[in-house]
Amino acid sequence: MNIGEVAAGIGPADSRAMRAAEQRQNNLTKPPGSLGRLEELSVQLAGIFRTPRPRPRGKTLVVAAADHGVVAQGVTGYPQEVTAQMVLSFLSGGAAVSVMAMKAGVELVFVDAGVATPLPDHPDLRSVRAGRGTADISRGPAMSREQAEACVAAGVRLATEAAERGADIIGTGDMGIGNTTASSAITAAFTERPASDTTGRGTGRSDPEMRHKVGVVERALAVNRPDPADGLDVLAKVGGFEIGVLAGVALGAAHARRAVVLDGFISGAAGLIARSLSPHVRDYMVAGHVSAEAGHRIVLSHLGLKPLLDLGMRLGEGTGAVLAMGLVEAAAACLADMATFAEAGVSDREPEDGGGPR
Amino acid sequence: MNIGEVAAGIGPADSRAMRAAEQRQNNLTKPPGSLGRLEELSVQLAGIFRTPRPRPRGKTLVVAAADHGVVAQGVTGYPQEVTAQMVLSFLSGGAAVSVMAMKAGVELVFVDAGVATPLPDHPDLRSVRAGRGTADISRGPAMSREQAEACVAAGVRLATEAAERGADIIGTGDMGIGNTTASSAITAAFTERPASDTTGRGTGRSDPEMRHKVGVVERALAVNRPDPADGLDVLAKVGGFEIGVLAGVALGAAHARRAVVLDGFISGAAGLIARSLSPHVRDYMVAGHVSAEAGHRIVLSHLGLKPLLDLGMRLGEGTGAVLAMGLVEAAAACLADMATFAEAGVSDREPEDGGGPR
Repeated sequence: MNIGEVAAGIGPADSRAMRAAEQRQNNLTKPPGSLGRLEELSVQLAGIFRTPRPRPRGKTLVVAAADHGVVAQGVTGYPQEVTAQMVLSFLSGGAAVSVMAMKAGVELVFVDAGVATPLPDHPDLRSVRAGRGTADISRGPAMSREQAEACVAAGVRLATEAAERGADIIGTGDMGIGNTTASSAITAAFTERPASDTTGRGTGRSDPEMRHKVGVVERALAVNRPDPADGLDVLAKVGGFEIGVLAGVALGAAHARRAVVLDGFISGAAGLIARSLSPHVRDYMVAGHVSAEAGHRIVLSHLGLKPLLDLGMRLGEGTGAVLAMGLVEAAAACLADMATFAEAGVSDREPEDGGGPR
Repeated sequence: MNIGEVAAGIGPADSRAMRAAEQRQNNLTKPPGSLGRLEELSVQLAGIFRTPRPRPRGKTLVVAAADHGVVAQGVTGYPQEVTAQMVLSFLSGGAAVSVMAMKAGVELVFVDAGVATPLPDHPDLRSVRAGRGTADISRGPAMSREQAEACVAAGVRLATEAAERGADIIGTGDMGIGNTTASSAITAAFTERPASDTTGRGTGRSDPEMRHKVGVVERALAVNRPDPADGLDVLAKVGGFEIGVLAGVALGAAHARRAVVLDGFISGAAGLIARSLSPHVRDYMVAGHVSAEAGHRIVLSHLGLKPLLDLGMRLGEGTGAVLAMGLVEAAAACLADMATFAEAGVSDREPEDGGGPR
């Protein structure tokens, strides 16, 4: 299937299951609304899984890594080799995402989407390389349209395969020195907000460095003029290989009717691209957390997503998505498995009273 | 051991382990600070467990239930029998906390601290009954000082036993129709904030009902004049049996050098009582979430605790504590098990640069 067919095959969430879930929530043994955000989330899961009693099983996180030619402009504090080094660290189990995923029982799929430094063959590393890092977006397009399509198609395949292996909750994670710069450009392109709003400090860069980074994003937009009505154009002109893969993961997961848990800013930028390719993919998205990176709030607001966690994290790798998966599971479990007032023999609210317990 | 001995036996968190943990955090393969709140939490855990590589194992939630004489004043929307009915629902596995704890691998200890309706014997229900519900705090003290001491001592024992069974993370949960009213009075007593600030809407009570509830809390404070310098006096005069047990759980967990994950408003009120009995118990406390119940933010700010989750929940039962335990485990696991830059062979930040990666 090509990307257009996948996107066209993504239908809206099941509104009948969602209505049934809302009704069920109001009959469960708790004051209505007392589980707060978990109740909304459970209704969304009912819509995704087409049942008022969703019981998602496996959890998979796809972590896509790639390099960015824009590092030539001095927008980052770490050298480009760190992308490859961190992939090796993922594989050896010592990275934050490795440790968290192990603890939370999340399957990890690491993907070389286009790391500049050659990586050794490894049984846990999937290669879908679209190139040796993107070109410098401050001087021209990041990649060709064909490369953009190839990245997205690879992501669709990875999500489809994860779903076939039993993953009902599919998360996105990233690694790529330079990728906040690309994500700032993508966010500016879709939201029409100035680069100064969509560009964050990364990890504590100084004021002059920040101004320089904003200037680089502005140049990338001016040089490339990405078309916000065409997600593949934005991806090709100011995106990144891993961002394209993650956009594809979102599309593939939605196409397979699985929940997509987005990580932070880079995953959010991938979400913007996915949404521009499919009007319904948004129904399947859960924002795992809101990152400390400034542009992420803009992304979430544009997608109409409320994050589950707000812990001041800004690491990427999918760490926020992994942490949020436990909340997604809890939301589904409460909806699916709690007893109703009638089943439990618990007295419901006194009818003459508008109030609640306690 | 009596309560005074337990309180006196609680020392501060281990500052040497905390300093070592901070240093370790800065050498782990991630930009310093990029795990946000999880880093602070991990340092706290290092102090609790006296090691820069804390590896907490078992998780236990103590859910204490009791009734409140103040329901005679019409402060709640559900009848008093619901307390006992919900305990039965906990035991049968259909309540929110039962479902969440099962999913998260958390051992549950249910405690009858003084439910008015008789409960059948059940292997999973511990009875530490201090009475058949408290007296009406709007007309006099909730309980005698001896009863208050007995509740706290019972909580200490429950936490000690949980720790002996292998629980390193001990959560608090509550059930008791009428217990937000008692918690509002406790919060007002300790923080000297007016009852109108510490009294919440419960589950959507109307404006006149809210005014009535505030009036009841004001009367409870005026009639009893609880002494904020004496936690047992506050507990005896305007508290509840389950609140006393949970204060004891916090003390017992801290005494055993375990992490205490507080749930919402009622657990927070118990935390205020525990803190008034021991200056160091606060070092062991983690605020699982902030409840939608208005007074809870006041409690957390008074305790100097930042909540991990903010999901608009207001159910109690320990649901917020259970959800947060996964974050506590993730924080500890990252600190204990991530590789350092040197171990992983990852290049650290370029020294001439004040910035970070990407």
